[in-house]
Amino acid sequence: MARLLPSALEKLIDELGRLPGVGSRTAERYAYYLLRSDQRINDSLAAAIHDVHVLVKTCPVTFALIDADQDVSPLYSDSDRNKKLIAVVEEPLDIVALERTGQFKGTYHVLGGAISPIDGVGPEQLHIPELVNRIQDDAVEEIIIATNASVEGESTALFLQKYVRDAGVEVRMSRLARGIPVGVDLEYADQITLSHALEGRRSL
Amino acid sequence: MARLLPSALEKLIDELGRLPGVGSRTAERYAYYLLRSDQRINDSLAAAIHDVHVLVKTCPVTFALIDADQDVSPLYSDSDRNKKLIAVVEEPLDIVALERTGQFKGTYHVLGGAISPIDGVGPEQLHIPELVNRIQDDAVEEIIIATNASVEGESTALFLQKYVRDAGVEVRMSRLARGIPVGVDLEYADQITLSHALEGRRSL
Repeated sequence: MARLLPSALEKLIDELGRLPGVGSRTAERYAYYLLRSDQRINDSLAAAIHDVHVLVKTCPVTFALIDADQDVSPLYSDSDRNKKLIAVVEEPLDIVALERTGQFKGTYHVLGGAISPIDGVGPEQLHIPELVNRIQDDAVEEIIIATNASVEGESTALFLQKYVRDAGVEVRMSRLARGIPVGVDLEYADQITLSHALEGRRSL
Repeated sequence: MARLLPSALEKLIDELGRLPGVGSRTAERYAYYLLRSDQRINDSLAAAIHDVHVLVKTCPVTFALIDADQDVSPLYSDSDRNKKLIAVVEEPLDIVALERTGQFKGTYHVLGGAISPIDGVGPEQLHIPELVNRIQDDAVEEIIIATNASVEGESTALFLQKYVRDAGVEVRMSRLARGIPVGVDLEYADQITLSHALEGRRSL
């Protein structure tokens, strides 16, 4: 059978198929959209894909993502932020989610993932020793462990808790509350979430 | 509120958000993947996005997509293909779907869309006159109208049928069969599909 599509289009479909969760049909749709769109749109996307490696770096203190010309994350250096309170998250994008609440005025620490033996991620690949150093350097009073509510997130939280205790540093530790999300009917809440919600019930 | 993400990452999220069906969460996921992937992967994707405009053109006879250095679609020029039989499709990717069946040995004609007043696509934007010219030039015996089973596809098929008759050219016209797709239970088939399946029933 002859090749059905021009080679440049097949190449683009292959390349787009590497994106997470993108199968061949979706990649075809994206590629066809890009083929029909204006050259300026494509060039602008191509430049953004190239630039993201060049213009983004990791904050050496918090491991958040920052502009290449910044020394440290503005969410750390800003004098309005309380450096004695740290929210510990798995990934940089988790910061965006927490900031959107507008409730948190502390600083962040990105672990860079969660402990997952299946994916070959052990504690030594996470920024845990750096967190202990920060707790000591900034005389931190509380860390809020804000890992995901997944098996990996839970293991990471437990490991972190033990690690900090074993390091002998004095700091309050807390976890995000588990419970029923807003807008969800009791009958649809899973068993484990409901158990958490019962356990963590608040007196009125 | 301070900017939460590096500007190059925000730019990439915006750009990826233009892809069809991609919302801000999906764009974030793609952007974060690209940020963490190897520079070579990004450069290769960026090059493919740029090249697709440069290295792909439209066949002047069939309006299929071809390499920039080809004169005409190999699915037309190939001597194995029966030029007296044309499958008329809406979009170039529809050719891929039909070729995958391995059943069709004729040639193709891409209309370049379907008639859709809502999207501002009228018959004059489709390659319909070119089809009539091809029917005459190649003494075509049959055209199979293989437009989508959507309202737009149906209108386009009806318009095309009338246009060809009015042009006074002698050619057999057929439509793809409508019916129950393989693997679907009767109880889940919608009413209209089932009506088509009844109407088009085959005697045994």
